[in-house]
Amino acid sequence: MTVILCVDIGGTQIRTAAYTPGNLQPLTAQRIPTHVTGETVFERVAAGIQAIWPDGEEVKAISVAAPGPLDPSRGLVFSTPNIKEWVNFPLGEKLTERFGCSVFVNNDANLAAVGEWRYGAGRGHRNVLYLTISTGIGGGVILEDRLVLGWRGLAAELGHVTVLPDGPSCSCGQRGHLEAIASGPAIAAYVRERLQAGERSSLTLEQITPQAIAEAARGGDMLARAAYERAGHFLGQAIADFLHAFNPSVVVLGGGVSQSSDLFLENLRATMTASVMNPIYVRDLSITLAQLGDDAGLVGALAQAEVLLAGERGDD
Amino acid sequence: MTVILCVDIGGTQIRTAAYTPGNLQPLTAQRIPTHVTGETVFERVAAGIQAIWPDGEEVKAISVAAPGPLDPSRGLVFSTPNIKEWVNFPLGEKLTERFGCSVFVNNDANLAAVGEWRYGAGRGHRNVLYLTISTGIGGGVILEDRLVLGWRGLAAELGHVTVLPDGPSCSCGQRGHLEAIASGPAIAAYVRERLQAGERSSLTLEQITPQAIAEAARGGDMLARAAYERAGHFLGQAIADFLHAFNPSVVVLGGGVSQSSDLFLENLRATMTASVMNPIYVRDLSITLAQLGDDAGLVGALAQAEVLLAGERGDD
Repeated sequence: MTVILCVDIGGTQIRTAAYTPGNLQPLTAQRIPTHVTGETVFERVAAGIQAIWPDGEEVKAISVAAPGPLDPSRGLVFSTPNIKEWVNFPLGEKLTERFGCSVFVNNDANLAAVGEWRYGAGRGHRNVLYLTISTGIGGGVILEDRLVLGWRGLAAELGHVTVLPDGPSCSCGQRGHLEAIASGPAIAAYVRERLQAGERSSLTLEQITPQAIAEAARGGDMLARAAYERAGHFLGQAIADFLHAFNPSVVVLGGGVSQSSDLFLENLRATMTASVMNPIYVRDLSITLAQLGDDAGLVGALAQAEVLLAGERGDD
Repeated sequence: MTVILCVDIGGTQIRTAAYTPGNLQPLTAQRIPTHVTGETVFERVAAGIQAIWPDGEEVKAISVAAPGPLDPSRGLVFSTPNIKEWVNFPLGEKLTERFGCSVFVNNDANLAAVGEWRYGAGRGHRNVLYLTISTGIGGGVILEDRLVLGWRGLAAELGHVTVLPDGPSCSCGQRGHLEAIASGPAIAAYVRERLQAGERSSLTLEQITPQAIAEAARGGDMLARAAYERAGHFLGQAIADFLHAFNPSVVVLGGGVSQSSDLFLENLRATMTASVMNPIYVRDLSITLAQLGDDAGLVGALAQAEVLLAGERGDD
């Protein structure tokens, strides 16, 4: 039996799972904290892999979803906000050294896109635009059944496009990026600002989380509703640009904020449809929610390993 | 000898040229007006091809650069501003019927990108972002040595991304698109508006063309300089977004306005560099002018035919 070991490295936990190709039910799975005093994150990752290493089976590859920006061709993590010790960190190389098998590394949003395309909401499509809307906004694009990577594997950073020049500050240091307006923290920041400006709301400054705002919006709070609608509007504007750039047949929305799509999808659709240069970009276009949930990273890592292993065998 | 017949269909003239693969010096070339009373544009195209049909040589393919939007997989022109009679026009099919050989059709900006990648300023790069800045702004993207097409072949319409919400009106009917701010007519419209608002300049309302503005700018006119610098700023903002979306290793600028790059390239670079989320996007990035000039459409059509014929033979 051939086994693929998948790893999803998050800021708070590392998940590992052993799969047989084509089967989303893992043989074994493990979940450990990312940061532990006295141990490097790399040692944590290695321990997570060791814990699921199958007895007497062939490990075909280790496939890793890591936070970016990173260069997938070299498995090199340039830097990443939640793992400060990784700067130009050769994650792929070090895992190959340690475990002596093929190692694939890619960023988590790219792999979630591959997972949704192969096993989730993008099945049957050859051109997929995936957006994860969460603490940040990340993207992944599949064109003609291939993941878009670009020169250094840094393509599809779709949270970092300017939707409002001189708009709110983004986590990356720039202003007016989509992430700075439509991510969970951006929605919360907008509500906070309007409350501080004296706007009336059932929310108080102490309870401003994307979830609390969503609940208030569903309860009829106008400020809370406006906050999600504003996010939907700018998502629609940005997605129209992405349709012009990539011309996908499906848009898949993942991440925590997408679970409140009832509060922003209508605005997203309206602005997107009104903003395309030609109606053909939205004719028969599907907009759909991601299906893999928290498993997107692991399943994406599995899917990408399957694609790459097929390529190595010359099936591609 | 194998011959590829290339066609570049413009709003005012149709150019045709017969090439042998790999040789940019055409065997024969022809240039005729697009519109003639009493004749359809399709008949004009057919006549242009007939005029260069080689005696006693094998025509391997006809490759056509046409104005878009169009679906290259079917050679179907959806609609196009300067040839009103073409609405859902099956150009590829009709040419195949008429001439009985393989026909490839793609839009002019996409083919110019392929031409620059294979024979021009993008040589040696596998990930190329091409922008033509002219009456409109068009784009073409090569990723991992493949032209980005998307679902219906409508990808890389890069003039139609929103850079300034609620900004100037675009030719497509939307507002604030890059084309509405940085194309030749947009630069002229900006100068006209400022003159009408009473701004001082050596230019008068009668002489506002992109060329006249460029001359005035080189002569030190402040309004003329500001107009190009403003275009450069928004080009830089949009290109930063395109770097995040596609992560190319080279940006190639073509089209008439790019001939005035001395007036906007510094601003473009400054804004682009200041706007990327991570300096790695611009490290070792080349920004360069297109090399194929007016031949971009024909040479692009040749290059694309070579790529597609190689694919048919299984060399790809």
